Amino acid sequence: MDTAKALQLLAGPLEVVHLGIENVASAPAATGAPVHTVDFVPPAGGDPARVAALQALASGPVGEAVDAANRRALDRILASRPHLVGIGVARDVIPGMADGLFLHAGPPITWERMCGPLRGAVMGGMLHEGMAATPEEAARRAAAGAVRFDPCHHHRAVGPMAGLVTPSMPVWILEDLDGPGTGTRTFCTLNEGLGKVLRYGAFSDEVLQRLRFMADDLAPTLADALALHGPVDLRLLMAQALQMGDEGHNRNRAGTSLLLRELAPAVVRSTADRERAARALEFIHRNDHFFLNLTMPMAKCMLLAAEGEGLSTLVTVMARNGTDFGIQVAGLPGRWFTGPAQEVRGLYFPGFGVADANPDIGDSAITETAGIGGFAMAAAPAIVQFVGGTAADALATTRAMGRITTGPNPGWAIPALGFAGTPTGIDVRKVEEQNLLPTINTGIAHRDPGVGQVGAGLVGPPWECFHLALAALAQAPGLRPQASGPPPNPASGLGPQASGKAEAGETGSGEREGA
Amino acid sequence: MDTAKALQLLAGPLEVVHLGIENVASAPAATGAPVHTVDFVPPAGGDPARVAALQALASGPVGEAVDAANRRALDRILASRPHLVGIGVARDVIPGMADGLFLHAGPPITWERMCGPLRGAVMGGMLHEGMAATPEEAARRAAAGAVRFDPCHHHRAVGPMAGLVTPSMPVWILEDLDGPGTGTRTFCTLNEGLGKVLRYGAFSDEVLQRLRFMADDLAPTLADALALHGPVDLRLLMAQALQMGDEGHNRNRAGTSLLLRELAPAVVRSTADRERAARALEFIHRNDHFFLNLTMPMAKCMLLAAEGEGLSTLVTVMARNGTDFGIQVAGLPGRWFTGPAQEVRGLYFPGFGVADANPDIGDSAITETAGIGGFAMAAAPAIVQFVGGTAADALATTRAMGRITTGPNPGWAIPALGFAGTPTGIDVRKVEEQNLLPTINTGIAHRDPGVGQVGAGLVGPPWECFHLALAALAQAPGLRPQASGPPPNPASGLGPQASGKAEAGETGSGEREGA
Repeated sequence: MDTAKALQLLAGPLEVVHLGIENVASAPAATGAPVHTVDFVPPAGGDPARVAALQALASGPVGEAVDAANRRALDRILASRPHLVGIGVARDVIPGMADGLFLHAGPPITWERMCGPLRGAVMGGMLHEGMAATPEEAARRAAAGAVRFDPCHHHRAVGPMAGLVTPSMPVWILEDLDGPGTGTRTFCTLNEGLGKVLRYGAFSDEVLQRLRFMADDLAPTLADALALHGPVDLRLLMAQALQMGDEGHNRNRAGTSLLLRELAPAVVRSTADRERAARALEFIHRNDHFFLNLTMPMAKCMLLAAEGEGLSTLVTVMARNGTDFGIQVAGLPGRWFTGPAQEVRGLYFPGFGVADANPDIGDSAITETAGIGGFAMAAAPAIVQFVGGTAADALATTRAMGRITTGPNPGWAIPALGFAGTPTGIDVRKVEEQNLLPTINTGIAHRDPGVGQVGAGLVGPPWECFHLALAALAQAPGLRPQASGPPPNPASGLGPQASGKAEAGETGSGEREGA
Repeated sequence: MDTAKALQLLAGPLEVVHLGIENVASAPAATGAPVHTVDFVPPAGGDPARVAALQALASGPVGEAVDAANRRALDRILASRPHLVGIGVARDVIPGMADGLFLHAGPPITWERMCGPLRGAVMGGMLHEGMAATPEEAARRAAAGAVRFDPCHHHRAVGPMAGLVTPSMPVWILEDLDGPGTGTRTFCTLNEGLGKVLRYGAFSDEVLQRLRFMADDLAPTLADALALHGPVDLRLLMAQALQMGDEGHNRNRAGTSLLLRELAPAVVRSTADRERAARALEFIHRNDHFFLNLTMPMAKCMLLAAEGEGLSTLVTVMARNGTDFGIQVAGLPGRWFTGPAQEVRGLYFPGFGVADANPDIGDSAITETAGIGGFAMAAAPAIVQFVGGTAADALATTRAMGRITTGPNPGWAIPALGFAGTPTGIDVRKVEEQNLLPTINTGIAHRDPGVGQVGAGLVGPPWECFHLALAALAQAPGLRPQASGPPPNPASGLGPQASGKAEAGETGSGEREGA
């Protein structure tokens, strides 16, 4: 029984509600009185330092100031209007992108600490860029420092799984039109489809040929279609997709269908070569994950609108590089709080099992950060079947995520929950207070380079990320407990004052400075 | 409280369950004992003749034989494999179609008894066929007998709302491939879209121009695409659509999207004229009801597989012409059991209300007859919003339809009900025994010719249809109560022996012979 149920019972007719040591309940139970046992875990797991930090951030004038900042941050997220506006080449359109620079999923990492699938993707990316002739040569050169690495998130980009973006790859361009971050652009590669794909660390000829087709044939076709069609409002497409069984992370069949029907007439009208137009439509049709690479930069665009909101404890990034899991919060933009990437609980493809699985990887948890994916599980009960769950489990997951978020997104309604909005804006304080981690839907990559996807399932972040973020927030100048003085000034913000840097240890847990 | 709940209580600890006269319960209630009042309605509403008919059809060896026949009929429905195989011109492909013959929705009807929207559609059809130059001339000539009328259902066709099929209209061709009715073909016009359309009785220039475009441009384009693509398995598309918020009657956004993405590459490859290909894709994209005109003949194709199954009490047709509602049953093929079309409970477009509404019209209730539409409401909670309902109401509706049907369709799973199959095979006996009519989702037509759609909502058949069918079934040679002798022989069937004909009265209620 959870605490809420216990409180409900306390408000009802007199029965015994027991939250303490087991023996204490034996006396009333012996009299025949109904005894309800509560699985009580104190806020922040009862850790004295975290309880103190939580109290500082959640009570009194500071608590009120944080509540108000989080509400403003959520309002900005919900007011964001990400549109798909075009396609460009990474080196031409992504800020800071340069030859020899590869972007990857998750927090910063060096070649030495990279997991197998990320190394595999880097090797494939070097073959794609002509920086090596064989996978072996690529690995040797990468280890020798031939490639510079940076997280996608440091360049307003996101990438599923390995998340590799190399300079010559085509990328979707999204832009906030008429939202609070008007002009904010985000980026993502085009989804390669299923089977052997670079994002899962595969680099066979089939993978490289597909990347070539996407760069030379698919992307220019879709770029022309978008130019003719004009911007596509992704928030509206996502709202429809949520009514059609998608959660925007592991299930994107509806979004893919809606995008295809929206663009198809323009693809035909803008492409002189009929066969080329047909190839583009067929490529999209054959890949129900095609829309994932748009939900992700859409989510990133929304969350950028909240970044730097003074005093806010909302999570704006959750991302994994296959070794570390990192989060960022709105009030401390650019700072990573990291812990070890976790094992994914899920279903494996025939012939594969837990021993083959790489830990959690990819920037795709940006969908959960924006209130979809695992947070919108109630919209996509098919997903919980991955872990033997039921439709009721799907509803329960979305309801549970309501306990750690700031409010519902009224624009993204879930039919099965009476059209309640998706739970949005993870609050570091609520995660700690409820002892409840975000639920993330994800794919599972093989741990070795060159293999690919082996399954799909559910995962959570490591607790370290939230413990470190809580501690940093409690020490931020605007939020640090004060003996006296005026309440915190929201306009001052936390970011600039709180840029203290902590080096990551060997384990990868810790705090680091972003770009 | 319903009977099931009462029985559940009876099986539990001793409390008082009261199903009778109110005063009887006052004594135990006075002692403080818990009294549960049951809103008890006896089977078949307690009507002595219907109770006797129900007993004859549901008990003893006859009951067992009917159960077995219904199970076989359901198995044949579920084994049917309707595929979209092509597009043809009605006069060339529909059996029995001829110049001067117009097909319409519902049971047989004359011009004199036709409702406004059906008359409007006939007038539009005459203008479309060049049989009149003005609506007035069309009405005059129709009244004078210039057009011969026949129900769509007499020609293996179905049509939404007015359901008008004229000889020169293009129609979808469906065929049962590898199912029990292999080679069975069914037909339906292509959906015109929203706004002013012939099926709602509108006949303006806009309506006629669209019909011309569909015949001369859209249909040939899609016919070429289908020839290149090959047959489309509609049962599989419907299975996907049910996981994507469609119920196949009032909501077809997913089915429309899935069909478009399936056909788009073939449309592009088979059409030399790029603009023409784009127009076809755009027409489909702009009409989320496009797939309705495929779910309907798919349902008809499935139900034809059950027709003539000896001794079966399953409903194979529910159809309305805007004046009469008619049903047919598997054991008495070709016989209509009719009653007055009912008022639709729903939401009206701005500026319209109940006084504008025509009674229930269209062959689209064939979807409910096949277990989708209102029966799959749990898959499409957005639909119940039409009548102010909730997601819970949608689940309850599908569960209730399980009480009057023969079994679930395992191929059509509903996520929100734990992937239970759609309730399929309406049993006349169960409708009477449960005092529960089928729930039908539908559009609302204006009662005057030439206006069009004014809303959408829910409706049920009139009780007369089921009372008449029950009586006819109980009097059929294979099922008539016998003093002695062997149990009924399923192989003999009911159809040929039970072809007695009863003329429809002035009210339209009664029984009629089909084609």
